[in-house]
Amino acid sequence: MAKYTIGVDYGTLSGRAVLMEVPNGREAASAVFAYPHAVMDRALPDGTPLKPDWALQHPQDYLDVLGHTIPEVLQKSGVSPADVIGIGIDFTACTVLPVLRDGTPLCFLPEYQSRPHAYVKLWKHHAAQDKANALNRIAEERGEKWLQNYGGKISSEWAVPKIWQILDEDPEIYEKMDRFIEAADWIVWQLCGKETRNSCTAGYKEIWNKKAGFPSGDFFAALDPRLRNLPDEKFSREILPLGSRAGSLTAEAAALTGLPEGIAVAVGNVDAHVCVPAVGIDGPGKLLAIMGTSTCHILMGEKEIQVPGICGVVEDGVMPGYFGYEAGQSCVGDHFAWFIDNCLPASYDEEARSAGKNIHQLLREKAAPQKPGESGLLALDWWNGNRSVLVDVDLTGLMLGMTLQTRPEEIYRALIEATAYGTRMIVENFQKGGVPVEEFIASGGIARKDPMMMQIYADVLKMPVRVTSTSQGPALGSALFGAVAAGKEAGGFADIFEAARSVDTSRDIVYRPIPENSAVYDRLFAEYERLHDYFGRGENDVMKRLKAIKNAAR
Amino acid sequence: MAKYTIGVDYGTLSGRAVLMEVPNGREAASAVFAYPHAVMDRALPDGTPLKPDWALQHPQDYLDVLGHTIPEVLQKSGVSPADVIGIGIDFTACTVLPVLRDGTPLCFLPEYQSRPHAYVKLWKHHAAQDKANALNRIAEERGEKWLQNYGGKISSEWAVPKIWQILDEDPEIYEKMDRFIEAADWIVWQLCGKETRNSCTAGYKEIWNKKAGFPSGDFFAALDPRLRNLPDEKFSREILPLGSRAGSLTAEAAALTGLPEGIAVAVGNVDAHVCVPAVGIDGPGKLLAIMGTSTCHILMGEKEIQVPGICGVVEDGVMPGYFGYEAGQSCVGDHFAWFIDNCLPASYDEEARSAGKNIHQLLREKAAPQKPGESGLLALDWWNGNRSVLVDVDLTGLMLGMTLQTRPEEIYRALIEATAYGTRMIVENFQKGGVPVEEFIASGGIARKDPMMMQIYADVLKMPVRVTSTSQGPALGSALFGAVAAGKEAGGFADIFEAARSVDTSRDIVYRPIPENSAVYDRLFAEYERLHDYFGRGENDVMKRLKAIKNAAR
Repeated sequence: MAKYTIGVDYGTLSGRAVLMEVPNGREAASAVFAYPHAVMDRALPDGTPLKPDWALQHPQDYLDVLGHTIPEVLQKSGVSPADVIGIGIDFTACTVLPVLRDGTPLCFLPEYQSRPHAYVKLWKHHAAQDKANALNRIAEERGEKWLQNYGGKISSEWAVPKIWQILDEDPEIYEKMDRFIEAADWIVWQLCGKETRNSCTAGYKEIWNKKAGFPSGDFFAALDPRLRNLPDEKFSREILPLGSRAGSLTAEAAALTGLPEGIAVAVGNVDAHVCVPAVGIDGPGKLLAIMGTSTCHILMGEKEIQVPGICGVVEDGVMPGYFGYEAGQSCVGDHFAWFIDNCLPASYDEEARSAGKNIHQLLREKAAPQKPGESGLLALDWWNGNRSVLVDVDLTGLMLGMTLQTRPEEIYRALIEATAYGTRMIVENFQKGGVPVEEFIASGGIARKDPMMMQIYADVLKMPVRVTSTSQGPALGSALFGAVAAGKEAGGFADIFEAARSVDTSRDIVYRPIPENSAVYDRLFAEYERLHDYFGRGENDVMKRLKAIKNAAR
Repeated sequence: MAKYTIGVDYGTLSGRAVLMEVPNGREAASAVFAYPHAVMDRALPDGTPLKPDWALQHPQDYLDVLGHTIPEVLQKSGVSPADVIGIGIDFTACTVLPVLRDGTPLCFLPEYQSRPHAYVKLWKHHAAQDKANALNRIAEERGEKWLQNYGGKISSEWAVPKIWQILDEDPEIYEKMDRFIEAADWIVWQLCGKETRNSCTAGYKEIWNKKAGFPSGDFFAALDPRLRNLPDEKFSREILPLGSRAGSLTAEAAALTGLPEGIAVAVGNVDAHVCVPAVGIDGPGKLLAIMGTSTCHILMGEKEIQVPGICGVVEDGVMPGYFGYEAGQSCVGDHFAWFIDNCLPASYDEEARSAGKNIHQLLREKAAPQKPGESGLLALDWWNGNRSVLVDVDLTGLMLGMTLQTRPEEIYRALIEATAYGTRMIVENFQKGGVPVEEFIASGGIARKDPMMMQIYADVLKMPVRVTSTSQGPALGSALFGAVAAGKEAGGFADIFEAARSVDTSRDIVYRPIPENSAVYDRLFAEYERLHDYFGRGENDVMKRLKAIKNAAR
């Protein structure tokens, strides 16, 4: 008799459940539920206005996802709830909320419903930037060693700047909260009735290290004396590695979802990192690039190395027993969208419309026949700054080589090539840093839709690029972790490695480098690298000076 | 009783005559005649095909301009031919043709009508590039001193590469021609019945110097032994300064034009240089920028100085007694046209159409409120290479500072600003070289139509920019030279300085620098200059390497 697990992927605007058959990884059904409150960036439900850069969510929406999508996948598939042996979830991160000791979100309390700081701070809540700046300055002054685990900078999106903002702006909420917890861990708490913390968000977003723990009380006190005991007072020092069983489904959660009480609940996970087993990666050396508006790179290594310019290195951060490395490119799909919105001539728009084609498709048809180097163009892909390996939001875009004969499709292709060069910088940065990269796996809509782009990536990287066929990476990954939490005896997997190896990758498409293209791209990449270093490593800080002039002018 | 002169301006596609009242410079009438053969770049009139990069014209068209436009301006104005005292002409250059000793163009001879090399080579005939390359190499190897009078490079558009191409490809035509003459001088010959050569084309296009004469026979022999006596065999050593009288109108020319026999005919001139008196410039220190698809800069100085990166310095090359300096920017209006054709989104096109606006007008409305530096963008205006001060056709365009918020009107304005920075490089290059620039005068359609651009130029240059009101600069300049040739006693001018001072500039518009804008532009120009030198003076030859890769790929 087939067994099943459920994976629930919490995105920015909706949650998606997938019912997966174990052990073949087949998707039996899926269902989506859009958050009724979506992203609150202008006002609370009662009309209380929010300041610029705020982005909140309502935790009731997360519970509603469970109540709607899980019954729906059971009903759609006809699978008996009795055959479901586990559940796993993943979430955007760092998406965090203040709760009471029993897990009740402060925003559920009537007295706090008009208090913005009582709600969930979504990953893209950017109102704690001044706190992040102060934190980074203080950490640098104090020579905090953990800073280099994060490429030298903590993001304003992460937990410490966010809770510091609460302390500063609404100390009563800070006092009242017993826990400040990732939404990933909070949902797991609602499922199994007890608080757990997962090694992935703790490591990447809460400055926790498996060996060294949290930063010292002295460091936190240097931010604000009231933060001295932050880890003990608001976080937790009990962190479970990914692949652990958090607990068993409670009666309440069983009633909400229609699943049997007592089945396994996996510890929480992050939407990017959870994809790794879902694309069949079972160990080090295989870099996963999740390509969307931006690109997130996940790689495992055997050792903890402070590679410059990465977003983080976390033990057990992706799979237990390995060091998970994260890097990123802040402008990929956004890059092309900007081009379409701002640079595409009317004649191309008309041509696409009269041919009934998507504009990206038309551009690809025009750009695909170009030989590498034929346009004479070269760009630096910094329209949204550079995340890895320069970790510098103040860098800006560059393009050179234009002539009066330069055509839009050449500019478009040059932007694509620039993102490929940016990826190669990241890959070579890992390799030079001592973290091997032997395979490149791409997932995400852009990767599946654009064969030209993937061939360019293979040619530039000089390694095969495997594009995953699944569009459900995160939810499937969560379902795999659910099956690991259930364990072998219940019909699940012994560990996440076995789970990853069970994934069917036979429909993935592999793009192999074409040697004559790679030979040209080697020369172009050398030019890219030289400009990258010239403008990115301090030789000519013109981009920063222009930004300063721009800010002064506004 | 009012006296009149006629100026005829020979452009690339048509000739234009203006009837001018002396001494007030008022335009009494004008007429245009389009060349029936236009530019022949694919075939001769009999169908003989032409190779790529060729551009020929038919000299009969030039005669037809005289026969049509001069009677027309007389008829339109009602001016009596008896009151016309002189005629001057200007031409594109270097536009040259092979003729017999009596002035008959070889292409008029039936036996040569199918021989491409028998026709006029238009200025933009670019098929002698290999000859120009060889000439420059040999001149450099031999340490020819005159090379520095031309910024270190002779253009393929000039006379020696063009005649060398004839010698090489059709030696019979070379043998048969008694003269190889500028169309400017040929038309003057047709008017007054005798061959003259003007100091402007001789100096700028035929490598002639008032003191040193032509390059040595040894130099010409190093190109090809048959060229040793080129100046004597095909050119002429008798060169008249601008402002001279070439002769008197012949009976035949009088019959053709309807003008009185015997009136003064001025020596020929070049369309750009002839504008100088027409905008009221009467001496050194006043730089005229003639702005069109590209920009040509003309300036007079007291001394002959080898300023690096200019197009040429010629004694009597603009006005007698002064050294005329020429510089240029190869991409100005072309720059903006490229942007409109290749980068303007459909939404802007629609907005302009629905508002009934010209697209440049719409862009100006959107770009004008921007403060200097507000876009954060900076460009190098090298889409068509760099003429002055780098003299390098292999340089290409650059733009940096783009973010995901960058809008089309910001890119448009950055392109305009880049041309202003390029102009400042030229102005400062003259100043550093010892040729003072104290005033900046702009003419041409772009200058008159775009107040935003002219304010930017004033702010960047930190000097007042006077925009001339006349749209007939060349033809009026020729008419002024015609009045000088006629002389004071006949009712004309004593010299070209008096003529220049007679020009009414009261309707010119003066843009004055706004100090707070100039302060920001000083900082932006410093960034431009640093990038200009980094990419343009050999520190990073990435543009040239990309061009080499591009050429190899094609």
